[in-house]
Amino acid sequence: MIAQTPKLPYYAVIFTSIRTPGDYKAYAEMAELMIDLAQKQKGFLGVESARDSLGITVSYWKDLESIKQWKKHSQHQIAQQKGQSEWYKCYKTRIAKVERDYSFEK
Amino acid sequence: MIAQTPKLPYYAVIFTSIRTPGDYKAYAEMAELMIDLAQKQKGFLGVESARDSLGITVSYWKDLESIKQWKKHSQHQIAQQKGQSEWYKCYKTRIAKVERDYSFEK
Repeated sequence: MIAQTPKLPYYAVIFTSIRTPGDYKAYAEMAELMIDLAQKQKGFLGVESARDSLGITVSYWKDLESIKQWKKHSQHQIAQQKGQSEWYKCYKTRIAKVERDYSFEK
Repeated sequence: MIAQTPKLPYYAVIFTSIRTPGDYKAYAEMAELMIDLAQKQKGFLGVESARDSLGITVSYWKDLESIKQWKKHSQHQIAQQKGQSEWYKCYKTRIAKVERDYSFEK
């Protein structure tokens, strides 16, 4: 689903990753858990995710402070550690301020 | 591939879309053509793309002016029109200034 984000400005966290082979079940469970948990955080606005050879997850947040708090969340910290030790070959995180947006719908 | 973007700041165009059913070949050809063409534009820095039920393409640009010029490009205009008339059920475009980034690599 395309995230229904509010009026500008808001923030996007663009997380692009390449997986290591294997361990699909544990990874998928953690990914789902993290999305559920993120949705409960203060300042969370929405998330979009797609994966083929590359994975791209974009989460949307009210401000930089809510992104910082989410990064520090204890369960998210555990997921980040497992990500580095097991699940990801490489990733890049970009934090960006959304300045314009526009939509098309049939 | 994860885009090798330069030093901050730069801009991201987050394009999230849901396809209409069918016409995979013509769509895939145009998508490839647009990525080739984008790479030749002034200010283009990189692109990342993934699709499952949702498609997410993030392109990176030097500044807002280069994004504006790419949006106006005649061949890209044709692709945008075909996108609305045939290929996309809905999409959302967000233009964002990347303020922080960090990487992990094994």
